[in-house]
Amino acid sequence: MTNTDPETNNPLPAAGGIVISVDAMGGDQGPAVVVAGLARFLEKEPEARILLHGPQDTLAPLVAKRKIGDRVTIRHAEGVVDMTDKPSHVMRHGKGTSMWSAIDAVRDKEAQSCVSCGNTGALMAVSMVRLRKAEGVNRPAIACLWPSRNPGGFNLMLDVGADVRADQDDLLTYAMMGASYARNGLGIERPRIGLLNVGVEEHKGRAELKVANDLIGRAAPLADFDYVGFVEGGDIPSDRVDVIVTDGFTGNIALKTGEGTASMISGLLREAFNKTPLSKIAALLAMTSLNRFKKRIDPRRANGGVFLGLNGTVVKSHGSADALGVAAAVKLAYRLASSGFSDRLAARVASAAALTGPDGERTRTEGTGTR
Amino acid sequence: MTNTDPETNNPLPAAGGIVISVDAMGGDQGPAVVVAGLARFLEKEPEARILLHGPQDTLAPLVAKRKIGDRVTIRHAEGVVDMTDKPSHVMRHGKGTSMWSAIDAVRDKEAQSCVSCGNTGALMAVSMVRLRKAEGVNRPAIACLWPSRNPGGFNLMLDVGADVRADQDDLLTYAMMGASYARNGLGIERPRIGLLNVGVEEHKGRAELKVANDLIGRAAPLADFDYVGFVEGGDIPSDRVDVIVTDGFTGNIALKTGEGTASMISGLLREAFNKTPLSKIAALLAMTSLNRFKKRIDPRRANGGVFLGLNGTVVKSHGSADALGVAAAVKLAYRLASSGFSDRLAARVASAAALTGPDGERTRTEGTGTR
Repeated sequence: MTNTDPETNNPLPAAGGIVISVDAMGGDQGPAVVVAGLARFLEKEPEARILLHGPQDTLAPLVAKRKIGDRVTIRHAEGVVDMTDKPSHVMRHGKGTSMWSAIDAVRDKEAQSCVSCGNTGALMAVSMVRLRKAEGVNRPAIACLWPSRNPGGFNLMLDVGADVRADQDDLLTYAMMGASYARNGLGIERPRIGLLNVGVEEHKGRAELKVANDLIGRAAPLADFDYVGFVEGGDIPSDRVDVIVTDGFTGNIALKTGEGTASMISGLLREAFNKTPLSKIAALLAMTSLNRFKKRIDPRRANGGVFLGLNGTVVKSHGSADALGVAAAVKLAYRLASSGFSDRLAARVASAAALTGPDGERTRTEGTGTR
Repeated sequence: MTNTDPETNNPLPAAGGIVISVDAMGGDQGPAVVVAGLARFLEKEPEARILLHGPQDTLAPLVAKRKIGDRVTIRHAEGVVDMTDKPSHVMRHGKGTSMWSAIDAVRDKEAQSCVSCGNTGALMAVSMVRLRKAEGVNRPAIACLWPSRNPGGFNLMLDVGADVRADQDDLLTYAMMGASYARNGLGIERPRIGLLNVGVEEHKGRAELKVANDLIGRAAPLADFDYVGFVEGGDIPSDRVDVIVTDGFTGNIALKTGEGTASMISGLLREAFNKTPLSKIAALLAMTSLNRFKKRIDPRRANGGVFLGLNGTVVKSHGSADALGVAAAVKLAYRLASSGFSDRLAARVASAAALTGPDGERTRTEGTGTR
């Protein structure tokens, strides 16, 4: 591996130089679980370092207990953003909180990416204010991983909730950003992109989807991804596609429906195995296979919604994440930082306008100033 | 049970008088599977009768083989609507097809409800043309059953794909129709209704959802249902709610995402049990419990999308339904017919306008003529 990015020619940090900025506060499980997750992560990535944000008095003993003080720097921040705080309030008064401090470390180039288990709306609002939208991005998006039939075990979907709206140009930007994430975060060289709709036929769905279908199809050959066209809800966990593009309303509903379905089925399965003495014995016999199965659909392995379209990478860990979940989110942030993802993404998106066709026409009519 | 409807005072057909109109053609599995499903259904409902539509020469031997000729009347129809036929084409040229004939039997009051495994778009188009929208309904909806944690085993959701749009008044109408279906189809006296959104807080989501939230909340006490407010995707299979109201785009994506997730998990589970000799033995030991589990999430049991908001009940069976699935769809049509559902629903919806508040104000500005 060279230490300049082949796409952008920007210098990549040496692996040893990678620092992840972590907000210790705001998760449902408290900072002890975050620090436990860090210990788990650091054990597997001996070169990584952490900048940890929160109250010094609370964090110092936790870090000492896990014996990771040589690789974790504590940055004192008194305030904590609560799960019930309104994003608009945090955006105006959040300076001095651990969340704000964690994002500012990316802004100030002290760290290459940021992880927080806190309030999603507030994290997005502060990220927007402090990191700003990347050039060419009108609406940033949140991308999540989804257990799938693909060899790597995951697909990714965006937007899953940054914004309840997306027009045709936003959907094209999401396709570009999703392809870049799949390349750098999942190691898929030529990702297959699908646009979520209520049917695969071209005449189906809402008007903006038909336009986006054309735009993404035209961009595909120039942007090194394959466009498979419209996909349906049933394709999200399939091996037909690597990246599913949709608006944040639909994506959020689909994500939570999938999680709810998986959790209902797991619950019913557990009950089935606890029903009779015979089924309890069966569960013991099948334990190895069942554990492999559980691991495959374990939502903790897919923990980490990535904010795309900002000048810097922010990973949102699930609020209720345990140590394994926190470790997965930090590992994802580390992997993205190691690949120089943020700069590559910016380069891709900035070139999107030129990719939509020989005439380069775009359909947006309002506010072209920042594109 | 009396033979007049307590809500509408219309005469109910005696149980012995109930006839279900069935389109034998158009399913992926062909008419033999439909007839097999009918035999299964008729065995359990000794009073029911069937009016079966399709080519006489094809159907007569199938009916004879199943020995159900005394309870099934064949209505000859030469044409068949194909899965790939465009709805607009079928609407103009579909006369003489088994689908058209099956719907006309409801229009002509020869049957109380209709079942088809055919092309959904065409079935909705022909139903709209021949049965017409019920008074007060702007957009009809398709309601589907969803395996859930509720005691009855199912929730229902609408719209899952009749229309890709729904405004606030449509969502109110869906709530009224969904409540009526839950009462008459699932036997839930006082259904709990939820409005699907990206969060449960009142300030979240799209503008029309905030207005619909108010409208449905005001209608609830007068329309004998409980309104639980906004629900999220994860609540769809939960026991928090009986009826989930959403637009047809979101509902269709959620439905197919849930189905895709369930099918991926079932596949992985099957693989886990086939992995080793030990896990195969375990599967045998746990067979009774596993079968109970499978039955609980078996999509065939929940087969039957019901078209709501027309002058007559139409049940869309899954195109790939097997005999068990067809039987479930016909049973649902029979249950709804027995309860006089279509008249009750019409009465509920017609009164919706008066239920939205003391001032009875509505927010629709266009086309109030048919409301």
